[in-house]
Amino acid sequence: MLGELVCVDYWANGFGMRVRIALREKLVEFEFKEEDLWVTQRSQLVLEMNPIYRSVPILIHHGRPVCGSVNIIEYIDEVWRVDRSSLLPQDPYGRAQARFWADFIDKKLFSTQTKFLKSKGEDKEAAKADLIEDLKRLEEVLGERKYFGGDKFNFLDIALIPVSSMFNGYEEHGGFKIEDHCPNLVKWVERCMERESVSKTLPNHKEMYELHKKWYGIE
Amino acid sequence: MLGELVCVDYWANGFGMRVRIALREKLVEFEFKEEDLWVTQRSQLVLEMNPIYRSVPILIHHGRPVCGSVNIIEYIDEVWRVDRSSLLPQDPYGRAQARFWADFIDKKLFSTQTKFLKSKGEDKEAAKADLIEDLKRLEEVLGERKYFGGDKFNFLDIALIPVSSMFNGYEEHGGFKIEDHCPNLVKWVERCMERESVSKTLPNHKEMYELHKKWYGIE
Repeated sequence: MLGELVCVDYWANGFGMRVRIALREKLVEFEFKEEDLWVTQRSQLVLEMNPIYRSVPILIHHGRPVCGSVNIIEYIDEVWRVDRSSLLPQDPYGRAQARFWADFIDKKLFSTQTKFLKSKGEDKEAAKADLIEDLKRLEEVLGERKYFGGDKFNFLDIALIPVSSMFNGYEEHGGFKIEDHCPNLVKWVERCMERESVSKTLPNHKEMYELHKKWYGIE
Repeated sequence: MLGELVCVDYWANGFGMRVRIALREKLVEFEFKEEDLWVTQRSQLVLEMNPIYRSVPILIHHGRPVCGSVNIIEYIDEVWRVDRSSLLPQDPYGRAQARFWADFIDKKLFSTQTKFLKSKGEDKEAAKADLIEDLKRLEEVLGERKYFGGDKFNFLDIALIPVSSMFNGYEEHGGFKIEDHCPNLVKWVERCMERESVSKTLPNHKEMYELHKKWYGIE
């Protein structure tokens, strides 16, 4: 029997961490069901709840699934609205910008990360330059503000912060310091880590890099 | 000097047609600026307004760009809210479902279409089966309802209807009738075409298929 609110995910899934952070920001209790992504066969629950993509995270609310991490954050923001601050900005243009950059993280930054980790030789140098460029774009969006949401930790902060659990991995893998290119972003990570919703969700940096090395067959 | 509301797009861009339909549904006047996608160089306006992707559609409102077709529909829905019916469903679960299926069209259906048009021999047969499967999934979502939005033509109808301008092309290219697999979807297209927002926006089917043949080098 499924509980009222269930988050199905793999502990080190950057997309899924967003869901857990959003729920914790809203102080909503949920049951966590671990899905092992190292075995080929997905669980019966995932096959049933997300038959098209067979992927996690999935948020199951009163037995009904919501799939796609950004979609889930918007859902959480709309359902647990009362007496809690909203995750998306209030004005339509701010919302459109937040959605644009969340999409940039999903479509651009995650694929740049994969190329960077998998590539070799000259390709690696090019991918490293791309990764730094992507991070610098986000540094520019952040500017001197406390959070991407301004004074408020919000939607875009939630979308990006899981990526930071690979920052040490990037540095070790590429032999560079993120701080040299994006000092504000590094300070932003420290600031976010002071929030219980984030510190409770993000895994250990070393463990994350080891996991990625295993995943991509990096020696 | 740019007008108050400008839509930059290429006439046959399925993603961009969504924006024009959404604006017409809301009875909002806009200026259309054609971007020629057949030349390698993008216009200065596109380079300036969408420097990361250099793609269209772009909606420029009071000089500020909004990029990404689904993002733009949500923006339109949020800005022109007063006295007009809303494009997204009212309940959070309905909204999450609509966003999920719009994403399915973008990530799955459009890439299946490309494979179907470009592939040859046995691969074409497999891609045709995939295309029919994708369409059948959407037929299932529609069910016996008038629109994807139920009695109301809404967000998901807008996201999908541009694809229908290639339905005749699919049939000619693959030697099959969509009606044999998705009778409700075919009736839904006819119903949508009765709306001025749609009929005014969708291009001629024959012209669309000829354009795709040229685009993909199909003989």
